Amino acid sequence: MTLTAWVNGQFLPLEEATVHIEDRGFQFADGVYEVIACFGGTFLDVKAHLQRLEQSCQAIDVVLPLSLNELQSLIEQTYQRNPYSDAMLYIQITRGAAPRSHLVKNRLTPTIVITSRELPIPTDEKLSEGVNAITLTDIRWKRCDIKSIALLASVMGKQEANRRGADETFWLDEHEHVLEGCATNCFAVIDGKLVTHPLDHQVLGGITRNMALQVAREQHIVVEERRWKLNESGLSECMMSSTTNAIMPVCHINDDSIGDGKPGPIAILLRKEILNRFEALKNSELKL
Amino acid sequence: MTLTAWVNGQFLPLEEATVHIEDRGFQFADGVYEVIACFGGTFLDVKAHLQRLEQSCQAIDVVLPLSLNELQSLIEQTYQRNPYSDAMLYIQITRGAAPRSHLVKNRLTPTIVITSRELPIPTDEKLSEGVNAITLTDIRWKRCDIKSIALLASVMGKQEANRRGADETFWLDEHEHVLEGCATNCFAVIDGKLVTHPLDHQVLGGITRNMALQVAREQHIVVEERRWKLNESGLSECMMSSTTNAIMPVCHINDDSIGDGKPGPIAILLRKEILNRFEALKNSELKL
Repeated sequence: MTLTAWVNGQFLPLEEATVHIEDRGFQFADGVYEVIACFGGTFLDVKAHLQRLEQSCQAIDVVLPLSLNELQSLIEQTYQRNPYSDAMLYIQITRGAAPRSHLVKNRLTPTIVITSRELPIPTDEKLSEGVNAITLTDIRWKRCDIKSIALLASVMGKQEANRRGADETFWLDEHEHVLEGCATNCFAVIDGKLVTHPLDHQVLGGITRNMALQVAREQHIVVEERRWKLNESGLSECMMSSTTNAIMPVCHINDDSIGDGKPGPIAILLRKEILNRFEALKNSELKL
Repeated sequence: MTLTAWVNGQFLPLEEATVHIEDRGFQFADGVYEVIACFGGTFLDVKAHLQRLEQSCQAIDVVLPLSLNELQSLIEQTYQRNPYSDAMLYIQITRGAAPRSHLVKNRLTPTIVITSRELPIPTDEKLSEGVNAITLTDIRWKRCDIKSIALLASVMGKQEANRRGADETFWLDEHEHVLEGCATNCFAVIDGKLVTHPLDHQVLGGITRNMALQVAREQHIVVEERRWKLNESGLSECMMSSTTNAIMPVCHINDDSIGDGKPGPIAILLRKEILNRFEALKNSELKL
């Protein structure tokens, strides 16, 4: 099946979609990205994703060459040119291409790449047992609030988790506070409250993180954005959030069981509420 | 003038040299690189660069698809297909291309890119006054010993230096020790000794750093690899090293003069000795 990608002003068959070897995204990780879910033609929080993309660009001093409405239109067109009803739209912006030098004094034309792939729909397959994580001391840069493509540390974290039979790595700061995962935000239930690291330079302001906190409040669960550790007394559940996973219970960390080693009631509740929202989007009248 | 690049098994005109948009170098900074100087057909420390490239690959679990001798041959061929007598050879290896996912469980075919551009020969132009630097608290990742393409923090450091009229940013650890620059190693002369941060996860083991330390010892200058700060008493000079700059005196940092604000005798000596080595390479019989 031929997929279609948007690259720098044109739609191309995915296999022919290339960038120059001197694109700064390839040589310097000099770019940012977003991953946006689409359910049956309705995009999830597309405005929030595009606003974050704009903020990421501003943080690295790249001027978006198109308005957010124009980008949204391109994302919608990319969706429509590909065969998936439930899709994962990927958009990447880099500073552009130039002979290699750390510093570019003149503004380049930014590179824009958009692809659409099948959304790995959150299933209940792993829900019965939850997933496993390991912890590692954070080796990432100190601007994890920017959604940049400088992801090598996260790749290494995922590789190490996989080597140890786990699904995700939770990054710990030097005092062993849980920051976030390689591609997820992390939460605990402590004394019945939903706890997650506050937004700062060490964590990304995840769109699904935000949704989870909102849903929790609607469900009358007390939310605390504060530093937390895995060994706190009263910790009964862990979970992680991401665009592609919604909420996933994390039941074993470094071979220790969390709570009774099974998905807990708050993770199950939040997951169900969020999946209900996804279902509602599929039946929405806002479809493309 | 048409330049030629090596990309994944073939020589191509540089303007046609591309990689797939799902190359992991473009989407995840999942790769490593080297910059090697060539003077009139003789490569500077090519074996050391290639060994470091191999170590960088091992650190991120990428298996080099060619032997170091084969890579050296490709680098030499790339040099010969381009018009520069004094050239800067750039080689980049990434994990390869695959549908986007942080974790790739199967080995991919690594991407290899080699280019040759004109070497910005170290001139005496800036030597009369030295260059300016600023300092910033280090925001980079904690594996700066790996020469990875996850360089966005260094790009941001260079941009900030440029905004403030300086040439380089010296990264400081949380105790204000000088680590290294965005694309250089950093040195001070303190009580007549040449001082530079020891090799650990916070600095790259620069090939020119190594050469500078060796030349200093030959010149009977005491070398200390230890943590150091800009406000140490007895500090009379600062300088930085890189493949393309050799040794460059740094005479102003954050608007403060270093020593008397002019290049000091040890920077001038080390620079002269290293440039002499470059000249000797040009007249070497080891030429291609």
